[in-house]
Amino acid sequence: MADSANPTAALLVIGDEILSGRTKDVNIGATADYCTDLGIDLHEVRVVADVEDDIIAAVNALRARYTYVFTTGGIGPTHDDITADAVARAFGVALPLHPEARRMLEDRWRQTSTEVNEARLRMARIPEGGTLIVNSVSAAPGFRIGNVHVMAGVPVIMKAMLEALVPTLQHGRKVLSRTVPAQVGEGIIAKPLSDLQHEYPDVKMGSYPRMGDGAVRTELVLRSSDEARLDEATGKLRTIVAAAHRAAGLPETVEPY
Amino acid sequence: MADSANPTAALLVIGDEILSGRTKDVNIGATADYCTDLGIDLHEVRVVADVEDDIIAAVNALRARYTYVFTTGGIGPTHDDITADAVARAFGVALPLHPEARRMLEDRWRQTSTEVNEARLRMARIPEGGTLIVNSVSAAPGFRIGNVHVMAGVPVIMKAMLEALVPTLQHGRKVLSRTVPAQVGEGIIAKPLSDLQHEYPDVKMGSYPRMGDGAVRTELVLRSSDEARLDEATGKLRTIVAAAHRAAGLPETVEPY
Repeated sequence: MADSANPTAALLVIGDEILSGRTKDVNIGATADYCTDLGIDLHEVRVVADVEDDIIAAVNALRARYTYVFTTGGIGPTHDDITADAVARAFGVALPLHPEARRMLEDRWRQTSTEVNEARLRMARIPEGGTLIVNSVSAAPGFRIGNVHVMAGVPVIMKAMLEALVPTLQHGRKVLSRTVPAQVGEGIIAKPLSDLQHEYPDVKMGSYPRMGDGAVRTELVLRSSDEARLDEATGKLRTIVAAAHRAAGLPETVEPY
Repeated sequence: MADSANPTAALLVIGDEILSGRTKDVNIGATADYCTDLGIDLHEVRVVADVEDDIIAAVNALRARYTYVFTTGGIGPTHDDITADAVARAFGVALPLHPEARRMLEDRWRQTSTEVNEARLRMARIPEGGTLIVNSVSAAPGFRIGNVHVMAGVPVIMKAMLEALVPTLQHGRKVLSRTVPAQVGEGIIAKPLSDLQHEYPDVKMGSYPRMGDGAVRTELVLRSSDEARLDEATGKLRTIVAAAHRAAGLPETVEPY
């Protein structure tokens, strides 16, 4: 969001369980952190149900628009795991058993005395032209086809797959951030913050109120991939906040919370 | 997702802080729970950045498709709060100061000895034709225009606004759920579960593996708004799981975890 030369990405979370509230998603936050670390600008997230047409529409909309698409969920052995089917249809390709995926799974099943059956072999179906994303946790691989990276929904597996992808992705300039805590309301800071934003259009500034513990707290966050400009703007913002605190009879600086 | 007569909804989460990973969203889960309780089928969630064109495109795509759209984030007093501007443009209407919103805010500011300034008055701008959503926490209201409900991003305020909306929304048949815990892998259950799904197309069945504590655990979840059918299918699934446990030399039933 802050460096227009960076690769861009979207995340597609697939699963009824997120939309019913039964499972509280944590993959959005993990993917956001991951992209920030790699200098990939995550532009958009969508959550859709286990409905093939909805998955296809989202995959096609997102892969046309961003450098990378990541998906999570729907690659297990049960009837509600339809992500591979949907992605194959989105790309207009077949979904054969992938020999290497099958070998990985059968190796693991031998070690764990797990029976090979038709349902389990569903997990070895990979859209034609896809390459595998290694699953170091439970063997069933994800896959990459075109710019779409299909991963598991179980958070520990999804994170392992993201790690496996690092060397295959183009990295951008990492977007750095600085936080200036303030103990005055957003309404006091809004005007000077807006003026500072105009002075530093390359440093993105956000203001985030915190509620719930009785005290007024606002976190002001500056983000840029240019550290020198970021620190310069942060210094000016600290001066603005200190003045606002003085005017309100508060200590000039407050501890982050 | 499970009752085609129910009203439908989408949630649009607006904010750079979610996409950068700095803030971990909790509003998706809260909205999902809320919709499930009211019998509203949440079909889709999108997260977009504080970029006016992206917000407009998402609002227009979603409001055409679903009974209700909920948005969270971007209605504060600072320059990065552009949701009201974007929604007004999406509807092609002006964004004047709303007298009642202004009164609510000025009443609160009088009580808290807060200065009225231009930045703060931004929060009283409501798209023409919009009606207010009361904010019992911090006074700055959300608003409803057409089928779009614009709410704060701060979770405690967002929840208060959802509560304020309950009497204004059409309720559907609540989708009930039953969970059958299993201690065998998804691959063993997949085939009989799929057969049962075909027998009960009106009871949606999902399978969710759990990882991380060494043991194999699968949660099988059944969802329907028809309680009798749901309980019937759940009974059959318990029998299937008990047989799988017996075959694996395990106790027939396991405690939920």
